[in-house]
Parts: sequence; structure tokens; C-alpha cells
Amino acid sequence: MLRNEALLQVAAGADIIDCNVNAPGVNDVELLTRAVKVVQETVDAPMCLDSPNKDALEAALKVYKGKALVNSVSGEEASLKRMLPLVKEYGCAVIGLVQDDEGIPKNTERRIAIAHKIVERAEKAGIPREDVVIDVLVFPIGAEAKAGLDVLEAIRRIREELGVNITMGASNMSFGMPDRPVINAAWASMVINAGATVLVTDAAKVRPAILATDLILGRDRFARRYIADHRKREQAAQQAQKA
Amino acid sequence: MLRNEALLQVAAGADIIDCNVNAPGVNDVELLTRAVKVVQETVDAPMCLDSPNKDALEAALKVYKGKALVNSVSGEEASLKRMLPLVKEYGCAVIGLVQDDEGIPKNTERRIAIAHKIVERAEKAGIPREDVVIDVLVFPIGAEAKAGLDVLEAIRRIREELGVNITMGASNMSFGMPDRPVINAAWASMVINAGATVLVTDAAKVRPAILATDLILGRDRFARRYIADHRKREQAAQQAQKA
Repeated sequence: MLRNEALLQVAAGADIIDCNVNAPGVNDVELLTRAVKVVQETVDAPMCLDSPNKDALEAALKVYKGKALVNSVSGEEASLKRMLPLVKEYGCAVIGLVQDDEGIPKNTERRIAIAHKIVERAEKAGIPREDVVIDVLVFPIGAEAKAGLDVLEAIRRIREELGVNITMGASNMSFGMPDRPVINAAWASMVINAGATVLVTDAAKVRPAILATDLILGRDRFARRYIADHRKREQAAQQAQKA
Repeated sequence: MLRNEALLQVAAGADIIDCNVNAPGVNDVELLTRAVKVVQETVDAPMCLDSPNKDALEAALKVYKGKALVNSVSGEEASLKRMLPLVKEYGCAVIGLVQDDEGIPKNTERRIAIAHKIVERAEKAGIPREDVVIDVLVFPIGAEAKAGLDVLEAIRRIREELGVNITMGASNMSFGMPDRPVINAAWASMVINAGATVLVTDAAKVRPAILATDLILGRDRFARRYIADHRKREQAAQQAQKA
């Protein structure tokens, strides 16, 4: 099982730990459950259980202590029918991907329409909208020059029209580009300013930019978090120099 | 005169070179003129002539080749009356500071009202609004938690209502804070996304973030500028390692 345990992905430094054990040949029902136990024994942070397998999610939710975030439901009918009852039963929160039976949205309007659909269906299933986190789906800027503008507009509109939390695989933006942390940091500042609340990104490298953005937006009283993080980085750099 | 020549401030790497020779005891009428000549003989970039002294500006404009940017006029009556005829006469562009006889604006509405006043008065003086660049005035986030939000809102509204170019002393945001380039980069991404077009900032350090922001906003076809700048940085780093 050692091979499989190595697949446990923990985003160090993140405020929520995304746990994804998917790989060919993995018994994810067993492994996701074990991963939840190991992480919850080790770290005091909420987890995001990330699996396309409903059985694996259900097994993991049975042992999870507290309120989990489940990744994910989509706007596809089969997904809504399969996942929403589970989310309701375990009282967890859920990430809603803006794709549906017609596939991945090509423009802002479709993203927004699918977000509306997911939130409506969740509420009908008895899940309050504050437990739905919309994933706006980010694609590489290297493949499509409108990739950034479309998502920025979708974030603004979804926040305005639905008021839900918003997540994304933020680092996708820089896929295939050099100096990815530079792009990831700029993108983080822009999407947080637009209304994104839960970024999946390279936390270790992008954290300073995120804290600077919070500071600029008036969300860091007396710059306490920004300055504390700066001191930590400075101490780490000094220790690295000594070693 | 050597002492004074050292005062010539050139923002290396910037697309516009701001030239400011102000210091106690300086004969700025003579020195600003000399500085314009030296810079224009050396560098192929437009200049911003930065002086509170109308005589120094006029002397410099007489020798300036091309269309200069003048820094600045404000919403104060004396300033409008003194500067606008000069701007009109020399056909240059001008930076309009959003402050007036009541002082520095405390909120967004006042910033916007003063921007309207400057653009209206410029147009009455025969200066087209495309030659007016509004400076929204940035204050340190360390002194006032609303400093960032106020300016972001002012930028959006001024772009929407007046459609003019927008500048600012962008690095003021991080004054007094540690790791200033981190804050300056985050702030640059946010204000460019909001509509700012001409930042006065630490160009050498903030340039990668600005190019990443342009890339994300679909303003860098095939990522050519971003990748070219990355290669330059990489080569510079390799040469520094060899030396």
C-alpha cells in the first residue's frame, strides 16, 4: 500500500486540504477513507474530499469528523441525481462544476446558467446555497486568449446574482507558461478582487500575493496577517542561509 | 551642477520616463530643460515632465521633441488657470490630480467629481479628453484600510463615465510595509484589471506582474511579450551567476 499512500496529495499551507487519491488501480473506497483518517489525525484543517466515485466519498464521509467539502457535483443530470442526496444526507458542503450534459462551457453566459442550475437543484434537494461552492473552471491562457476575461466576468456575475462562494483550479491559468508563480500570483489578485473566495493553487508560492490582496482590500486589520507571514518567510530564509 | 544632475530620476524599464528635478536650491527652469535634452539624446521613450513650476515646464516644452506628458494640473482653480493654456499651447498631454481647493479627497465620490471637473475644464480650454490622464491619488494601505477599495472604485467609475486614461503613484500603496514588491505587484494586477493604464511604479520589480496581467487580460497575443521578458530575466540571472 505504500505506493498508494504516496498518492495522497496535500496542498501544504492551504487553509483547506484537498484530498485526492485517484490513480489507476487504486481501491479508492478504502484509500480515501484511510487518507481522511491520517490527515485528520495529523493536521487541524478542514478537508475537501475529491473523488468522482460516490462510494468512495460516502465511505470517507462516514469517518470524517466535522463538516467536509465534497469535490464535486456538476450540472450533468446524472451527477446531480447521484451526488445531491449524499451531500444532503451528510450535511456537507459541495463544489459545483460549471459543466453539464452539453460539455464544458465555451462562454460566460453558459457558465452562469449552469451555476444557477446547480444552486437551484441543490436548494430543491434541501441543501442551502451557502453550502454550494461554484467552480468556474479555469483554462490555460496559453490555449485561449479570452480564458481570463471570461472567468473574471463569470465570477462577478455569479457573486452578484447568486451570492455563493467561488472556487477554481487557479493554477490552470498558467499551464504551459514559463514563470508560472508570476502568472498565478497576478491571477490570484484579480480573481479575489472579482469575488473568488476559495482558490486551489500553489499555496506555498502564491500565499504572499493572496495576503497582499487581502490587505489591499481592507480585509487584514492592521496588516497583522501580512506582516506575520512576512516574518515567517524572513526567518525561513535566514535559517536556510545558515544551513 | 553635478549635485543637481544626480537628481535626475529615470525609472529604468518604464515605457514613459518621468523627469523630476525638484529639490531645494535647484534652478529648475534651467535644469529641467537640460534634463530633457540629455534624456532625449540618450533614450528613445516619451517623457513626463514633472514640475510644479510653470516656467520650468514651459522652458522644457520649448526644447522637447514630440508630444510630452506634463505632470500636473489639479482641480484647484489657480492650477487650472495656470496650466491648461500651457498644455493647449504646446499640444501636450497632461496629468490631472484629483485634488482641489478643498484639499485631498477623502472618498470615491469626491475623486470622481474632481476628475469630471478637470476633464470639463480641459475640453473648454480646447484640450481633447484623450490628452488628459487622471491621477486617482493612492495613499498607503498602512494608514487607511479603505485606501485600496476607494481607488479601485474610483478607477472603474472614471473609466466608465469619462473614458480617460488613468495613472497613479502605484507604489504609494505599500509605503511603510515590508516586502513592498509583493504588494506593488498585487496592486498593479488589480488596478490594471479595474482600468488603470499608466502606472508610476518600481518598473524593474513590478514588470513581470504587469506583463502577466496583460497576458491574462488577453492583451498579449501568443504571450509574446511575457515570454520575451521571461527569457531576458533568465539570461540576466545566468549572467549574474557566472559573474
